Amino acid sequence: MRQIAVVGSGGPIPQEVYEMAEGLGRAIARAGAVLITGGRGGVMEAACKGAKEEGGLTVGILPGSEGDDANPYVDIAIVSGMGDARNAINVKSADAVIVVRGGAGTLSEIGLALKAGKRVIAIGPSGGVAEMMAGAVIDGREVLPAGSVEEAIELALRGP
Amino acid sequence: MRQIAVVGSGGPIPQEVYEMAEGLGRAIARAGAVLITGGRGGVMEAACKGAKEEGGLTVGILPGSEGDDANPYVDIAIVSGMGDARNAINVKSADAVIVVRGGAGTLSEIGLALKAGKRVIAIGPSGGVAEMMAGAVIDGREVLPAGSVEEAIELALRGP
Amino acid sequence: MRQIAVVGSGGPIPQEVYEMAEGLGRAIARAGAVLITGGRGGVMEAACKGAKEEGGLTVGILPGSEGDDANPYVDIAIVSGMGDARNAINVKSADAVIVVRGGAGTLSEIGLALKAGKRVIAIGPSGGVAEMMAGAVIDGREVLPAGSVEEAIELALRGP
Amino acid sequence: MRQIAVVGSGGPIPQEVYEMAEGLGRAIARAGAVLITGGRGGVMEAACKGAKEEGGLTVGILPGSEGDDANPYVDIAIVSGMGDARNAINVKSADAVIVVRGGAGTLSEIGLALKAGKRVIAIGPSGGVAEMMAGAVIDGREVLPAGSVEEAIELALRGP
Repeated sequence: MRQIAVVGSGGPIPQEVYEMAEGLGRAIARAGAVLITGGRGGVMEAACKGAKEEGGLTVGILPGSEGDDANPYVDIAIVSGMGDARNAINVKSADAVIVVRGGAGTLSEIGLALKAGKRVIAIGPSGGVAEMMAGAVIDGREVLPAGSVEEAIELALRGP
Repeated sequence: MRQIAVVGSGGPIPQEVYEMAEGLGRAIARAGAVLITGGRGGVMEAACKGAKEEGGLTVGILPGSEGDDANPYVDIAIVSGMGDARNAINVKSADAVIVVRGGAGTLSEIGLALKAGKRVIAIGPSGGVAEMMAGAVIDGREVLPAGSVEEAIELALRGP
Repeated sequence: MRQIAVVGSGGPIPQEVYEMAEGLGRAIARAGAVLITGGRGGVMEAACKGAKEEGGLTVGILPGSEGDDANPYVDIAIVSGMGDARNAINVKSADAVIVVRGGAGTLSEIGLALKAGKRVIAIGPSGGVAEMMAGAVIDGREVLPAGSVEEAIELALRGP
Repeated sequence: MRQIAVVGSGGPIPQEVYEMAEGLGRAIARAGAVLITGGRGGVMEAACKGAKEEGGLTVGILPGSEGDDANPYVDIAIVSGMGDARNAINVKSADAVIVVRGGAGTLSEIGLALKAGKRVIAIGPSGGVAEMMAGAVIDGREVLPAGSVEEAIELALRGP
């Protein structure tokens, strides 16, 4: 199965960003792909919620060691127990990585995804690190800028 | 969803052990639980094959960094890129851990599972580390001995 | 520099086991080797204390993410932030691994060390997992039994 | 002991960047701090070489699982076996993180270091990710820009 990761802010996010991530989750489920996230709140929760609305399958790769830090829309909880070092697993487990808003942790996921040769798409209008890094070229690889959820999904599915 | 891990030999195994692990996978799927394994060959492959025969869902937490080391019956590939250190994730992600045969890597999973307070069941007749450790008590916790696949599943599902 | 790991109980230990681990630390320092431990209490603390008494260098590969869980005799704190999954790093970083007493976590280190092809020595008289596993053969590799600190060190230094 | 990480390009680097990293290593050693790096080539090797020139102590937290990927100036090899996920350990183990040039992997270290609340200093004139991120503010934390090795060290030592 195709596996697509959505990475971004774990904390409180504006309503329009929540809806963006939710729409992304719905689109990923409709495309028949498995949604991979870090399993927590904010963008991760919104994406999982969207995927479940469309009957999709959601995986949460959790930082904690107990599994009690998953949002309610996570189907399969991977309990890493390794904090932010689990970010490397999130992106390696994905065929493509879509960035929504995000802060320092998300920045690390962009770096790790580029390093792993993954297709990285940043939805600029969501703000945060997505906006900061959309279009950036590092080691000759571009963080593909997307102006909307639809554009992001199209770029994610086009990949190898 | 309930998540049950099957751990054991990744290398070549006797036919009767393969069938044991396959039966375990079938029983886990029939119980409506998600099967967690290390995603590789031997016992892991047999369990995944069995789960798919019953329409179950299989997760492989892979040691490699490319995702190309999964057996063909893995639905969701978690690409850890961390070698045997991923053993800690396998057992933390499970509600119960069932041991089939196994060697040094499997021994580490028994230790990590007991440390994490997980219910650990060893099918003694499968040989290897399962036979060596069945009934052992470490830190006051017992590796629960099971004489058959049926007994193992019953012990796994009884747990908290 | 040669790097030798001492693994074992992190909790309260009998006085004679503390002295055993302390003696081991002293011997490792006198041999000019760097002491690798998990950086916590019990056997780990005793070994680090011994190494410092002889002017040795001690490394603690800590499970926590803050670095505040090191014992006072750790020179270099490696902050893994990955809980017991760091056990894999402890043993991979060592040329030889010496086991003193220990419980479930220590059992995982024996498994991981054997899997990584490391020389593993268990001081049987220290009790616990060391006693349980001394002389065991897994995947064709023996957990070398040692009756004393001196014997353990000799076996550790003899290795490749 | 104070522990300072130098992160940056692992591949071939211009001569003046090599000398910058070497100077950084020397300054860290003179300050009595332990140098933490990822243990590989390029900026990591240059920093380790510099530290050894001044009699400092160098730690390499290696991505590989064998320990044979260390540069010749690494005193203590931490064999993580977890690829780029070890970047999280590099930065968590440091009191301050200094960035020299760098690409995608280095970007992930900046993100992880900011997330962990570490002081991050980027030597802009070294180019690459250091230049791109110097002065950036993420989650309210600034990547402190330094115009020279001297300025970088002063900022690193000033920290809590």
